[in-house]
Amino acid sequence: MQVPAIDIICSDLESIWIPEIWIEVARHTGIQALSKTTRDIKNYDELMTFRIKTLKQHKLKLSDIQQIANSIKPLPGAVKMISWIRSVCPFFIVSDTFIEIVGPLAKKLGSPPLLCHTLETDEQGCITNYHLRSKNFKRKVVQAFQDLNFRVTVIGDSYNDLHMLKIADQGILFNPPKDIQNSSPGLGQTFSYKELKATLESTASTIQ
Amino acid sequence: MQVPAIDIICSDLESIWIPEIWIEVARHTGIQALSKTTRDIKNYDELMTFRIKTLKQHKLKLSDIQQIANSIKPLPGAVKMISWIRSVCPFFIVSDTFIEIVGPLAKKLGSPPLLCHTLETDEQGCITNYHLRSKNFKRKVVQAFQDLNFRVTVIGDSYNDLHMLKIADQGILFNPPKDIQNSSPGLGQTFSYKELKATLESTASTIQ
Repeated sequence: MQVPAIDIICSDLESIWIPEIWIEVARHTGIQALSKTTRDIKNYDELMTFRIKTLKQHKLKLSDIQQIANSIKPLPGAVKMISWIRSVCPFFIVSDTFIEIVGPLAKKLGSPPLLCHTLETDEQGCITNYHLRSKNFKRKVVQAFQDLNFRVTVIGDSYNDLHMLKIADQGILFNPPKDIQNSSPGLGQTFSYKELKATLESTASTIQ
Repeated sequence: MQVPAIDIICSDLESIWIPEIWIEVARHTGIQALSKTTRDIKNYDELMTFRIKTLKQHKLKLSDIQQIANSIKPLPGAVKMISWIRSVCPFFIVSDTFIEIVGPLAKKLGSPPLLCHTLETDEQGCITNYHLRSKNFKRKVVQAFQDLNFRVTVIGDSYNDLHMLKIADQGILFNPPKDIQNSSPGLGQTFSYKELKATLESTASTIQ
């Protein structure tokens, strides 16, 4: 057995393995304002403050969001693909979501390790604040593994993945929007789990 | 749902979830010298150099060691316990073993993410060298996650776990030898998976 050329795979969560959660929340509640993402409000703090304010206006509690999140199904083929990746090498989901919302949902993916942020609620169960693990969290996770001398492959699709994709030993875009496709010529581009698997197989010298 | 008081659990591998590999190798090959551990030769570099030299003397290849490792079974109850831990929070094994030897064995544990070192072989498949990810690898892994603002629980049993156990937010000894029991009064001590589960449950404010 040779040493594989991949030591660790880190991946974004939403749009790669599950649908975008806030868009599902907007669809279920009918509150269009909640469908805004970092594409609409680029500043994440501004976006989250807006979301929390909107939830409060509509008297929606964390438990309401959890109920919607729990009804979300993984994208077709996601469970099988994640199971395969985990049989190849250590796999982590690195996400700017919140453990209170996506924790139970991750179980539907087979409970891969999920590195993400946390929410704060009041006694009534309303979301009052959010806590990022750190600024530039995704990039810092990848950097931490690299500092430990692991070669890291990153799978992502959107702007907030670009920093971790660019410092990765191998960066793979999965179903990226057109503007990211055009602006990131150095990254591998895949548009299906089949293509993603083929790209990973071509990197790993040993798929056990 | 409250935020759990544990964000991540890191655990040693040998003697916690599987038997000591080199002792199994000594038993299968009948080469008593291979049963030496860090308890006999405290300097790890000296120990590994001695092991590699001994394997060469007996013309044992990596594939021979892999064959023995593949025959090792997880300790009774290990698979179920790991499955439970992974449903609670991100879990990974942090070990001073080598991916080429323990990779397939980890599959028997359900393929938890395994952070460990690598071996170098020559064209004949003989082990010629080993590569540690870094010095103080275990402690550095725990520190890296703490630097990312995760609260880390560590499970370990032996001297080379003490550094990561001591910097952990929660350090739990599992079946430690008597001298470690006596010299580490600040660490939780457990002697069965049932006790370990109870200790973890008492820390996590939410077991989903």
